[in-house]
Amino acid sequence: MDDRFARRMNGLKASEIRELLKVTQRPEVISLAGGLPAAELFPVEELKVVALRVLEEHGPAAMQYSTTEGYPPLRTWIARRMTERLGAATQPEEILVTTGSQQAIDLSGKLFLDEGDAVLCESPTYLGAINALRAYQPRFVEVPTDDEGMIITELERRLAEVDRVKLVYVVPDFQNPSGRVWSLERRRRFMEVVRRHGVTVVEDCPYGEVRFEGAPVPPLKSMDAAGQVVFLGTFSKIFCPGFRVGWVAAARPLLEKYVLAKQGADLHTSTISQMEIATYLSMFDIDADLRRIREVYRARRDAMARELELELPAQARFTRPQGGLFLWVELPAEVNARELLQRCLERGVAFVPGGSFFPNGGHENTLRLNFSSMPEERIAEGVRRLGTALREMLPPVPAGARRAV
Amino acid sequence: MDDRFARRMNGLKASEIRELLKVTQRPEVISLAGGLPAAELFPVEELKVVALRVLEEHGPAAMQYSTTEGYPPLRTWIARRMTERLGAATQPEEILVTTGSQQAIDLSGKLFLDEGDAVLCESPTYLGAINALRAYQPRFVEVPTDDEGMIITELERRLAEVDRVKLVYVVPDFQNPSGRVWSLERRRRFMEVVRRHGVTVVEDCPYGEVRFEGAPVPPLKSMDAAGQVVFLGTFSKIFCPGFRVGWVAAARPLLEKYVLAKQGADLHTSTISQMEIATYLSMFDIDADLRRIREVYRARRDAMARELELELPAQARFTRPQGGLFLWVELPAEVNARELLQRCLERGVAFVPGGSFFPNGGHENTLRLNFSSMPEERIAEGVRRLGTALREMLPPVPAGARRAV
Repeated sequence: MDDRFARRMNGLKASEIRELLKVTQRPEVISLAGGLPAAELFPVEELKVVALRVLEEHGPAAMQYSTTEGYPPLRTWIARRMTERLGAATQPEEILVTTGSQQAIDLSGKLFLDEGDAVLCESPTYLGAINALRAYQPRFVEVPTDDEGMIITELERRLAEVDRVKLVYVVPDFQNPSGRVWSLERRRRFMEVVRRHGVTVVEDCPYGEVRFEGAPVPPLKSMDAAGQVVFLGTFSKIFCPGFRVGWVAAARPLLEKYVLAKQGADLHTSTISQMEIATYLSMFDIDADLRRIREVYRARRDAMARELELELPAQARFTRPQGGLFLWVELPAEVNARELLQRCLERGVAFVPGGSFFPNGGHENTLRLNFSSMPEERIAEGVRRLGTALREMLPPVPAGARRAV
Repeated sequence: MDDRFARRMNGLKASEIRELLKVTQRPEVISLAGGLPAAELFPVEELKVVALRVLEEHGPAAMQYSTTEGYPPLRTWIARRMTERLGAATQPEEILVTTGSQQAIDLSGKLFLDEGDAVLCESPTYLGAINALRAYQPRFVEVPTDDEGMIITELERRLAEVDRVKLVYVVPDFQNPSGRVWSLERRRRFMEVVRRHGVTVVEDCPYGEVRFEGAPVPPLKSMDAAGQVVFLGTFSKIFCPGFRVGWVAAARPLLEKYVLAKQGADLHTSTISQMEIATYLSMFDIDADLRRIREVYRARRDAMARELELELPAQARFTRPQGGLFLWVELPAEVNARELLQRCLERGVAFVPGGSFFPNGGHENTLRLNFSSMPEERIAEGVRRLGTALREMLPPVPAGARRAV
C-alpha cells in the first residue's frame, strides 16, 4: 500500500475482463469473454450520412460546449421511448444524458454512498458496477437470486438486519452475467418491499430492448409511485457503444443531484455524439435495427446452447436467456473456473470466470459466456474447445444431453 | 439535508457559471461569463472530410468498445507533442485519454483524496476543479499568488504547517480565472519545494498552447525528475471542446491508477471521437489552426483591455494576459461583484463574480471576464455596459486611464 493514494484505491483492482481482453486480441483466440455487441450490425453507411447532416445543420455548435443535462432533442426522444415502450411515464426534464451508463453507475455511488454504507445487489451482479461502486467504499450485501430474480424473503431479511442500506442495485432484464429476467410477480413484490423501506433503487437496464423471444416485462421504474427508482439506459446495445452515450431517468429532485455530480465529473457528454445519435434516430428506423439485432443474437444463443448441451457434463447447468448478450454456466462444484480458464487459453478460447461477479467472493465453479459477438460456427468451435478442456479436469463420464435451466 | 444522500453531496452546489450560462442564452445578453472558445474558428468543413475518412478506414471498429487507455495513434501524437513542444519527454504508455480534462481532475480527487485530506491550490483557482475535488471532501488550503505565480514562501509555510497535504493543484499557464503565467524562476523554486516534500502535483494545462505573445515557459512536468507531476491536457482549446477529449500524462505507476479509476468511471473515452481527432491531426495542420486562434484571441484581449482602461475607475486593476481566454479584474474593495452582476444583467451583460474562484470565500470585489468568444465590437459594448453599471455603484469620479497589472 502506497500512502500517497486515497484509501479507496486499496480496493480497486484491474478488472479481470479488461485484462483478459488484452490476451484475447490475438485473432486465433475465440473470445467468449467480452461483452461486445455484433459490430457487423452497426449502421456504418448510415452514420456517414448522419455525420454530414449534423455538421451541415449545426455547424460549429456541434463542436462547442453544451449543457450538462444533455441535448434537448435527445432527452425528448429518450423520454418518449421510455413512456411508450417501457410504460414508464417520463418527461424530458427527468433525463440526464451520461457518458455511457457506466458513468451513471459511478455517479450513483458518488451521490449515495459514504464509506461503510451498504449496497444490496443480486448475487451474482455486474462486474462493472462492483468496480465503480467499490471506489465509494461500501459494504456489498449480496441477495440470493433464482430463475425469477431476487428472492424477496432474502431481500426482506437483509433490509431488516443490515444497517445503513443506501442503495439497491439491480439488473432485472437479461442480467449481466446470468442472462436472467425477473418475473412480473417478483418485480411487484420487490417494489412493495423497497417502497416500505424507502430505499433508493438503481435499475440498470442496458439489455431491456434486446429481447429475442417472450413478452417484455415492465421495468421497475414503471411501478415506481414514490420516485425512488433511478433507471439507467444506454445506446450501447441498441445503436453502438463507441459513442459512450447513456442516460439516467429519475424524478426531478434526484436528477438534479445527478446533474451536479456530472458537472464535476466531465461537464457534459460529447455534443457531437449526442447530435449524431438524435439525428440518426430521426432519419433511420432503430426498430428495424433492433429486429435485426434480436434475430442475429437469437441464432447465436441457439448455437451456443446447442453446443453446450453436447459438451457439458450431466452435473453442469446453464441458462438459456430470452435476450441480452450473456449466458451463465454452473459447473460441478469441484471445478474451479479460473483453473479451467488457464487450460482454455492454451486451447485458444476465453471466458470470464464467474467468481468475479460476486463482490464477496466464492462461486468459483461458475462462468459467463458471451454469445453476441461472433458467428455461430465460431461460437460452436469455442464451446467445443471449452468442453475438451473441461473433460480433462473431470473424471471420465459419457457426455449426455443437458437440460437448460 | 436529505439523509438518502452521501455526506459529500452537502458540499456540492450548482456552479455559478452553469447557472449563469442559462440566463445568458438570451441573444441580447453579452456574456463575458462563459469560457467558450471562438466557435467560428472550429474546422467544420475539415471535420466532414475526417468523419467520412474514419468510417471508411475503420468501419464498425470506430463504433465499438475500445481500451480504457485510449486509441494508440492518439496517445502517440500526444506523447510526441508533449516531448517536442513542451519539453516534457513523454512515452505513449504514459498517456491516458480522458473524457475532457475535467474528468482527469475528478479522477485526481478519486485517486488521492480521503475525507479531510488537504489540497493546496492557487488563490484564486479554477472553479471546475473546486467543484470536482469538493466531492472527495478535502480541506482546500489556498496559497497566495502574485504576478509571477504561487508565492513560494507561502507555499513552504503551508507545507510545513498543514497536515495530510495529498495534492497541489495548479494552473501555471494563463490561469483560469486570473490569466496569469508563472515565471520560469517561480516554477523552478516550486519544483524544488514540492520535490523536498514528495507531494503529488496536478498541473492543469488547458491553455498552454494558446499563447499570443511572449516566449513559452516550460511546464512543471518538464522539470519533474521524481515522477510526481501529473500533467492534464485537452483538445478543447486547440481543436474544439464538444468532443470531450483530454488526457493525463503521468509516470507509469501513477498512470496505472488513473486507468483503473477511469475504468469504473466510464470504461473509456468515445472511440469515434478519438479516431476523428487522430485523423484530423494527421490530415490537417493544427499549428496553422493555432496561429489563427492566437491572432483572433489577441485582438479580442486588446479590445477588452482598451475598453477597460476607459471604463474602470482609478482604484481598479486588471490583468493583461499573454494567452488563454480570461482576464481578471480587482475592483475597489467596497464594490461587491455579485451585486454588480445583478445590475449588469439588467443592462444585458454578464460575467462571473470572482468570489466563486476562492474555495474558502472572500474576495467579493473581483471578477472574471472572458474575451475569446465574441467579436471586438461586442466585447467593447459589453465592457461599456459593465462600466456604466459600475459607475452607478461608486461615488462620482472622473474616468481615467487604468494601468494593466
